[in-house]
Amino acid sequence: MKKVVLAYSGGLDTSYCAVHLSKDLGFEVHAVSVNTGGFTKEEIQKIESNAYKMGVATYKNLDSIETYYQKVIKYLIFGNVLKNNTYPLSVSAERIIQAIEIVNYAKKIGADFIAHGSTGAGNDQVRFDMIFQTLAPNIEIITPIRDLRLSRQEEIEYLKNNGIDMSWEKAQYSINRGLWGTSVGGVETLTSEKALPDAAYPSQLKEVGEKKVTLSFVKGELTAINGSENKPERLIEKLGEIASAYAIGRDIHVGDTIVGIKGRVGFEASAALIILKAHHLLEKHTLSKWQLQHKDYLSSFYGMHLHEGQYLDPVMRDIEAFLQNSQDKVTGEVYVTLRPYHFKLDGISSPHDLMNAKFGSYGEMNKGWTADDAKGFIKIFGNQNKMYHQLNSTE
Amino acid sequence: MKKVVLAYSGGLDTSYCAVHLSKDLGFEVHAVSVNTGGFTKEEIQKIESNAYKMGVATYKNLDSIETYYQKVIKYLIFGNVLKNNTYPLSVSAERIIQAIEIVNYAKKIGADFIAHGSTGAGNDQVRFDMIFQTLAPNIEIITPIRDLRLSRQEEIEYLKNNGIDMSWEKAQYSINRGLWGTSVGGVETLTSEKALPDAAYPSQLKEVGEKKVTLSFVKGELTAINGSENKPERLIEKLGEIASAYAIGRDIHVGDTIVGIKGRVGFEASAALIILKAHHLLEKHTLSKWQLQHKDYLSSFYGMHLHEGQYLDPVMRDIEAFLQNSQDKVTGEVYVTLRPYHFKLDGISSPHDLMNAKFGSYGEMNKGWTADDAKGFIKIFGNQNKMYHQLNSTE
Amino acid sequence: MKKVVLAYSGGLDTSYCAVHLSKDLGFEVHAVSVNTGGFTKEEIQKIESNAYKMGVATYKNLDSIETYYQKVIKYLIFGNVLKNNTYPLSVSAERIIQAIEIVNYAKKIGADFIAHGSTGAGNDQVRFDMIFQTLAPNIEIITPIRDLRLSRQEEIEYLKNNGIDMSWEKAQYSINRGLWGTSVGGVETLTSEKALPDAAYPSQLKEVGEKKVTLSFVKGELTAINGSENKPERLIEKLGEIASAYAIGRDIHVGDTIVGIKGRVGFEASAALIILKAHHLLEKHTLSKWQLQHKDYLSSFYGMHLHEGQYLDPVMRDIEAFLQNSQDKVTGEVYVTLRPYHFKLDGISSPHDLMNAKFGSYGEMNKGWTADDAKGFIKIFGNQNKMYHQLNSTE
Amino acid sequence: MKKVVLAYSGGLDTSYCAVHLSKDLGFEVHAVSVNTGGFTKEEIQKIESNAYKMGVATYKNLDSIETYYQKVIKYLIFGNVLKNNTYPLSVSAERIIQAIEIVNYAKKIGADFIAHGSTGAGNDQVRFDMIFQTLAPNIEIITPIRDLRLSRQEEIEYLKNNGIDMSWEKAQYSINRGLWGTSVGGVETLTSEKALPDAAYPSQLKEVGEKKVTLSFVKGELTAINGSENKPERLIEKLGEIASAYAIGRDIHVGDTIVGIKGRVGFEASAALIILKAHHLLEKHTLSKWQLQHKDYLSSFYGMHLHEGQYLDPVMRDIEAFLQNSQDKVTGEVYVTLRPYHFKLDGISSPHDLMNAKFGSYGEMNKGWTADDAKGFIKIFGNQNKMYHQLNSTE
Repeated sequence: MKKVVLAYSGGLDTSYCAVHLSKDLGFEVHAVSVNTGGFTKEEIQKIESNAYKMGVATYKNLDSIETYYQKVIKYLIFGNVLKNNTYPLSVSAERIIQAIEIVNYAKKIGADFIAHGSTGAGNDQVRFDMIFQTLAPNIEIITPIRDLRLSRQEEIEYLKNNGIDMSWEKAQYSINRGLWGTSVGGVETLTSEKALPDAAYPSQLKEVGEKKVTLSFVKGELTAINGSENKPERLIEKLGEIASAYAIGRDIHVGDTIVGIKGRVGFEASAALIILKAHHLLEKHTLSKWQLQHKDYLSSFYGMHLHEGQYLDPVMRDIEAFLQNSQDKVTGEVYVTLRPYHFKLDGISSPHDLMNAKFGSYGEMNKGWTADDAKGFIKIFGNQNKMYHQLNSTE
Repeated sequence: MKKVVLAYSGGLDTSYCAVHLSKDLGFEVHAVSVNTGGFTKEEIQKIESNAYKMGVATYKNLDSIETYYQKVIKYLIFGNVLKNNTYPLSVSAERIIQAIEIVNYAKKIGADFIAHGSTGAGNDQVRFDMIFQTLAPNIEIITPIRDLRLSRQEEIEYLKNNGIDMSWEKAQYSINRGLWGTSVGGVETLTSEKALPDAAYPSQLKEVGEKKVTLSFVKGELTAINGSENKPERLIEKLGEIASAYAIGRDIHVGDTIVGIKGRVGFEASAALIILKAHHLLEKHTLSKWQLQHKDYLSSFYGMHLHEGQYLDPVMRDIEAFLQNSQDKVTGEVYVTLRPYHFKLDGISSPHDLMNAKFGSYGEMNKGWTADDAKGFIKIFGNQNKMYHQLNSTE
Repeated sequence: MKKVVLAYSGGLDTSYCAVHLSKDLGFEVHAVSVNTGGFTKEEIQKIESNAYKMGVATYKNLDSIETYYQKVIKYLIFGNVLKNNTYPLSVSAERIIQAIEIVNYAKKIGADFIAHGSTGAGNDQVRFDMIFQTLAPNIEIITPIRDLRLSRQEEIEYLKNNGIDMSWEKAQYSINRGLWGTSVGGVETLTSEKALPDAAYPSQLKEVGEKKVTLSFVKGELTAINGSENKPERLIEKLGEIASAYAIGRDIHVGDTIVGIKGRVGFEASAALIILKAHHLLEKHTLSKWQLQHKDYLSSFYGMHLHEGQYLDPVMRDIEAFLQNSQDKVTGEVYVTLRPYHFKLDGISSPHDLMNAKFGSYGEMNKGWTADDAKGFIKIFGNQNKMYHQLNSTE
Repeated sequence: MKKVVLAYSGGLDTSYCAVHLSKDLGFEVHAVSVNTGGFTKEEIQKIESNAYKMGVATYKNLDSIETYYQKVIKYLIFGNVLKNNTYPLSVSAERIIQAIEIVNYAKKIGADFIAHGSTGAGNDQVRFDMIFQTLAPNIEIITPIRDLRLSRQEEIEYLKNNGIDMSWEKAQYSINRGLWGTSVGGVETLTSEKALPDAAYPSQLKEVGEKKVTLSFVKGELTAINGSENKPERLIEKLGEIASAYAIGRDIHVGDTIVGIKGRVGFEASAALIILKAHHLLEKHTLSKWQLQHKDYLSSFYGMHLHEGQYLDPVMRDIEAFLQNSQDKVTGEVYVTLRPYHFKLDGISSPHDLMNAKFGSYGEMNKGWTADDAKGFIKIFGNQNKMYHQLNSTE
């Protein structure tokens, strides 16, 4: 019997796929979900029990939170990556890891087919297909939703006719939750001019005062919150819990999709935003001017290429080597204050802080040089412009 | 009698210079202040009357707010320039304009000398000297403060001995005000870990609710607030007034000074921050992916080079040509909500909005292509990675 | 009757298209060829007479050499563009202009269809289709060769059956000639390891000594050869004639095609290579360090994007604005020596030469600064590295 | 007695320094020369015996050819670095290694002073001083030539008066020889318009035919010539010997010095040029499009920063990490033909060649996709430009 691995979330589309693949097409369906921080234990149990109702042969949940952190999030932090200076790329990054985990699983169980429920309209099909085709050129991809273009109603009918009579009411806002943020789409994000209402966001304001938080980094990686050490992925979860009470990290991302049209999506990503900004501040104190400059250039491309599903381009590994190397001195504490809807960075301390007092403070006359040194510096630093203007002056 | 133009602010250092140049060195001193948005009429009158007490031959205030906008701020907006992703470069940009205005004034009145009150420790001396030397290679620069390295107390004594008995008490926070923002230095900014207290910032929170504001742009330039048109520099002032009641736009900048050490300074720049972010959002809707990408790269350099006093490098004119050209379609309205300490961008409307519904919406199956088109796109878009991994796979 | 504009070169593929479109599909066929420097008058006459044999309603040759120079070559020179540091992008650039000229012609004569003879394997289909679709979204594209995938033999048979009995022998090397260079493909370029034999190149060595040539540029544009002025496109032709006797400008380009696979093609482009290198040398003398640096970055992208058919991306106009502005002082003479198979640049003279003796010569102690100035410069120029290493030294 | 390490080459300037430091200033002088490929054994022996005549306490030659390769040349090859697309940075790179070796030697023997013979006019003083100050902030730098500004004649007189009566006639061309190239300065390079005469170059044409050479690379490093393996630095020497008979690799570099003025210098660097171009060709076959693109960007900066003496900026280590990582598949043979005054690259073979026939050849219809796939690709690839032009079309 032909084996297919189905990327399964338990939603209407992938439920349709499960039934269609097993009943209509006669596949032995191995449903798999990849947890990148979006599912609780209870949710996974429910997905599992539903999967078997759809006729799958096996169901497997892969806990990929640590892999997600190690393969992608770590570098997004090193690079302070915010797409279009706004969006932490939470969904884009998840899809990459999910695709890799699924294709590895398919190879492991010897499946000749992989099925997923993406439509033909968006980014996800590109990320899934490209990674499947690249890592497993002999595995065939099946995409019933993209190919058949059924309406929600047709899918529900089909499931009902196959004995699946569940409630598939559509939520007002479509939510995608993960370790690095939660995306929120709704009627407003289909327009260019409307904001999402506060109530559309997953977290609601619960605190009105302010709270101090200390984040510790070692070589660019988060190692402790308020002195309490843990693995980075656990600390990201923890910080999300703390900050969500302040309704921090909400925004709307407008950007270019892989298929060339503009897309708009709301998101809430308090932990991501706080960590990225805190990490960047620590870098401003510990890295050289040109490290900061080139990191920006490479990270911006890294984010764009990741977003477009090009994670397997070898240039991504080269950029990661650069980023990893740049983190050698990014060690220290960052002091953050949380407030309703926003946060501020108070300061840092680091053994590698280049503002270290032993070199003198900016704006005070320095042990390092004299007025004459400064004049000499200025003369020579300005040489080329002086020559250019003397030569080309039209006066 | 030898003529010197003195860059004069009315503070202790430039007051010392005025007296020293006229009395000790026998110069005919022509004091000049350049208003880039920092002075009120009353302040200018006071500066003027004090100047004459210091023995200057003439005093002139140059109103350079429009020049400031046209020569620098406009391009900082086009480029969405925030140094180290934080600082609108308010002081850096002002110094450039002040230097240019002063050297033009010196040429106009036929002065052979220019004096300024910068020390040998900081950025300002570099900006002033380089621009003076470049635009007027035959004018000699005199810098008593840098050369003599007097203490505040010595300067006060000197002035008293010369009959100037004014109050020179040092403010707790040193403030530099201008059209594009106000910088705040204090005991905290000399450390790496301490935030400025709320009270150190020039504006204090006066409103608790939220306020909607609509900004109109034409080809990248701000043309109206809430439908009320005016010159861009007037609108910047106006927006600052509105937003300051919400204590918006405060932050601390940490960055590399021209002399190679790290510096830290607080600032409040509500109008700058709101305009830059609103403008960027409008660009996300109206520019192509690669316009956004390359604008970022060039603007980042533009900001760094401006900060380092290299405004007269001809590459700056080339970048401005790029930026100007890129603004052709950046026309539309941006909807902003002000809240205590922060603001959010609600959305935009524009005749050039690429999210225009006639192309279909992202995530919905598009008039533009079929499932097969998408599959063809993905196959070819992923070609190189597929080949690379097939060839180099170690399995 | 339905009008179709056929991009017609007179070769086997487009001859097939002409007959197929008119006889089988009943179109009124308007054949058009676009001369970007590849055709002589005699060739055009022959193409025309053949076209009518194939049953076209009209034939038109568009002389687009000047357009080609003004729209693309000019900027390739400004940017010193050599793809992968080797290839002047001659074919890529021609296709863009040909596509634009063809679509404009189709609009002008009111055609609802455009046909071209590209296959589905290469770059040309992408450039043609994208430009047609972008500039004329309502015109339908017809591509018989791509769709029917006929062999050469089948096409020849078809033409014979339709009364066209011409000689269609395949040349040993496929040649594409144009103003900016001639490409050469053959059995060797399908391998990675073999060079083209000398005889495969269009020009053969006729001179053994050396020849001096002086090129004059005004604002980056070639204005004279050996003092004889003419339009740039005429001078490019002229220089090609002179240099071809030295068999200059041959090489093999290896690069990434738009469809993701690597391609290899020989070319001869003596005029392009000499002009690009001469222009670059003149820039090294007249532009600032950062102009040179940023021009490189933008030009490299400009070449890649052009190669990939993205000429109509508005970012290309922004880059052109930068490049145009950067040429303001690129005026002067460049002295070149031609030798068999290679050339060398002897030097330049320019009123904007920054090596001008009035600033002193490099390596001689300069009027501009003293030993103490130099020491001051070095101290401060090295500040950040000194701090970094003192702080982070492990000794 | 105070110990000084003197960077000693045996020329007039450093001979003056040796005598002046020991006799006039009473130092215990430890002369050191650093061989980066410029000295033969005989020359070193002669330098040594002369050194003792000048009164030095000890003389030491450091053989740093391998260090030079490992620390700098390797990365220049990985990055295909040619400053301003012309110059292999031979002198710039040597100075860095010499400075590092000298300061390490000074620390090892416990010297409190380092002396060098650079003037105040050029690049070398900047490179030497910055590296000395960074790696040994407590060692004092002594520069008699820069400080005293003596003429050649004064130095010769001084030496004669101190009993040193050697011949110091000035060569017509000043030559700096090293592993990565030989620079040539003369009366012509002080102008902008004159070429160096053939005779000024160190190697003269001895062969008239052509010679085939095969270079083998493993992970970007040269490992064999014509199948004969050796260490990279030995192979560079070997290739230089072979190619010098063809007078290959001559050119004139025009560029920006660290002190802001333009400089011009001739050079001959046959091995460097051949290796860089061969390596680049191998990369074009084995790296992805974006690896090639980003390598160019980073390498261009790497070369500029190295040239300016900023080798110790930590960003250089980050770029090296990127470059090292990018070389993983740069393994294979490159076939080169040497001819009088120039060379050509014939082709390559590599197990990682992405032009591998199993993916089909460019221009032939591919196993990988159909005509419909190509049409789908083009539709979506062109989406954004189509939307932009439809929306913004003025027709």
